[in-house]
Amino acid sequence: MLDNKPFQLVQATPFIHHVKQQNPLVHCITNDVVQNFTANVLLAIGASPAMIIAKQEVESFVAIADSLLINIGTINSSTAKSMLLATTQALQTQTPWVLDPVAVGGALDYRTEIVRQLLSLKPTVIRGNASEILVLNGENGSSKGPDGQNSTTSAVHAAKALAQKYQTIVAMTGDIDYITNGNILYSITGGDIALTKVTGTGCALSAMVAAFIANSPDPLSATASACFMMKKAGQRANKQQGLGTFAVSLLDQLSLFNSLHQ
Amino acid sequence: MLDNKPFQLVQATPFIHHVKQQNPLVHCITNDVVQNFTANVLLAIGASPAMIIAKQEVESFVAIADSLLINIGTINSSTAKSMLLATTQALQTQTPWVLDPVAVGGALDYRTEIVRQLLSLKPTVIRGNASEILVLNGENGSSKGPDGQNSTTSAVHAAKALAQKYQTIVAMTGDIDYITNGNILYSITGGDIALTKVTGTGCALSAMVAAFIANSPDPLSATASACFMMKKAGQRANKQQGLGTFAVSLLDQLSLFNSLHQ
Amino acid sequence: MLDNKPFQLVQATPFIHHVKQQNPLVHCITNDVVQNFTANVLLAIGASPAMIIAKQEVESFVAIADSLLINIGTINSSTAKSMLLATTQALQTQTPWVLDPVAVGGALDYRTEIVRQLLSLKPTVIRGNASEILVLNGENGSSKGPDGQNSTTSAVHAAKALAQKYQTIVAMTGDIDYITNGNILYSITGGDIALTKVTGTGCALSAMVAAFIANSPDPLSATASACFMMKKAGQRANKQQGLGTFAVSLLDQLSLFNSLHQ
Repeated sequence: MLDNKPFQLVQATPFIHHVKQQNPLVHCITNDVVQNFTANVLLAIGASPAMIIAKQEVESFVAIADSLLINIGTINSSTAKSMLLATTQALQTQTPWVLDPVAVGGALDYRTEIVRQLLSLKPTVIRGNASEILVLNGENGSSKGPDGQNSTTSAVHAAKALAQKYQTIVAMTGDIDYITNGNILYSITGGDIALTKVTGTGCALSAMVAAFIANSPDPLSATASACFMMKKAGQRANKQQGLGTFAVSLLDQLSLFNSLHQ
Repeated sequence: MLDNKPFQLVQATPFIHHVKQQNPLVHCITNDVVQNFTANVLLAIGASPAMIIAKQEVESFVAIADSLLINIGTINSSTAKSMLLATTQALQTQTPWVLDPVAVGGALDYRTEIVRQLLSLKPTVIRGNASEILVLNGENGSSKGPDGQNSTTSAVHAAKALAQKYQTIVAMTGDIDYITNGNILYSITGGDIALTKVTGTGCALSAMVAAFIANSPDPLSATASACFMMKKAGQRANKQQGLGTFAVSLLDQLSLFNSLHQ
Repeated sequence: MLDNKPFQLVQATPFIHHVKQQNPLVHCITNDVVQNFTANVLLAIGASPAMIIAKQEVESFVAIADSLLINIGTINSSTAKSMLLATTQALQTQTPWVLDPVAVGGALDYRTEIVRQLLSLKPTVIRGNASEILVLNGENGSSKGPDGQNSTTSAVHAAKALAQKYQTIVAMTGDIDYITNGNILYSITGGDIALTKVTGTGCALSAMVAAFIANSPDPLSATASACFMMKKAGQRANKQQGLGTFAVSLLDQLSLFNSLHQ
């Protein structure tokens, strides 16, 4: 059994600073619902988003990008093909990449099969909710679309097993976030329930992880730092006015996050 | 001639409450412009959105969803196929579904033909503006894209005829909303002109209707309740700062809507 | 060498007023990231957006639209086909149209070839950043995806050459905006760096240009007026709260822009 180490602001700070300094170019092949929010979140933290999706273009763009995000939320035959081309290229050019296996499992056999293929292409990080992580580990998750409802603490074993099996980092986020490479297990508490009531906060976090692992010598801590930043911004964001204002304020807090003094 | 019955807050309240309690899973196949806003509106009222669009996945997802939204705003060959598969499945599994026939008629023959096929698959509710309802009833609407300009009051006859012909509920929204099953006609006044100056308020209302009719014993009143809630939120939202703030405030008001005390 | 004439509010005012009066129907075939923001920007300035993308529909819709926007940001085989059909129609019906060549050049050969075809269909205006304008003129831009980093002043020669070669108007925006038809050169200073930190401000500006040139007897001044309006709204928007609030406030400022008194 691995020790569960709380991940702290002091650990996150240099990684947040690194993103702002490096301004990484993050190639995103993500779902139709969250493209705008994802791009704005990346800009807010100091990264540079590029949504390039044509099968004719993804390979050459992966080669110049600093990292890649693959999110299967609204996958179809055309985007699936682009995702497989891009990740095959990423494996070859050693471009770090993040897999967000949105709503895998349950009734959705097509994406589940695509995810199986993507896993063989060695994602640097898998970022998902507890249901998705359970499914990837061959267990039953709650199959209710993108908003899975299993608790993360009950699925830590699956996160570890998955990390070990695929030699990857698993970031399982929810009430408590767990980030593990199979040897070390970080946990992050905090955040706010309102984060689950705005679409795309998880998807945008996956994009943040992609930004954080770009050119990073320590992708495990980089991944935990992205999760920490999102939880903290969610805590700081204005919850008094309703969910519209909360979403705007979340972007505000991400953009104002001072990596040196907070 | 049917009586025109004003629909009131006291009637809407239990239906608004029902959505929050049930947290219905709403399968959305909608247009590219409004996906994010639609998902956030559904989350704000307590429903759970899922945008599943691949032809390989829509049938099995309809089978587990509580309701389905079909919006043809940015229809193309690929999404048209998914829409026909999904609604054929909905008819078989008796999953209630809403048709939003965006910009039907006029110069746009392709979508007009697809809508004809969709109508044969028995939508539970058709939600459109006056131009769209007139077109579906075989009359001329103003064919200027998504923002039709006919008055709803002048098109009530078309709404009734359409409801009777297809044994469906028609929610025709605009200056005054009219909701009818061909026997009963509800009307809702109020709202705000700013609702027409933010993209996707009509599309998101169609998604709300889908959430409201999920597992509802009274889909007519459920539909009227969704329309009522949107008009009321539009009235309450902040109009002083400009249209950006209005859109954010609209989401705020939807999320703060207290189904018991307002 | 052309004179560089500063473009002023007094020149922009009648064009801003014209859009509000005419309420032009702007047909947009644009990228997936900015569809919602673009539609809201067009509504905010008084235009009417319509995102019609199916290859079956674009030609007949161009014929009724007042202007057309082509933005290649997330181009793929399907949208490329629609873009070529739409612009071929626009040339035939003399519908004014704007080309936004997002991220052309660099690693992205596919879009570069499509842009070459689009250029032969006589865009009324090309709106891009300095990198994109340099690439279109056969020079090297910084090939880092949509956020090019060349200065506009260093690329004025390319904007002029491009305008002359294709008998078009070039609006090259950035730190200073330059708008030229090859004979006259307008410049606009001001704006705010935050405009580069919100996704889609450039793309939405291209849509604004499409709205401004609709039924305009002076497309050069109309184009400069759109650029002026965006820069001024960016200046006026709230930068104190962070990037989320800035984006909302930008829409506010566009919607509140008083064409007669500011």
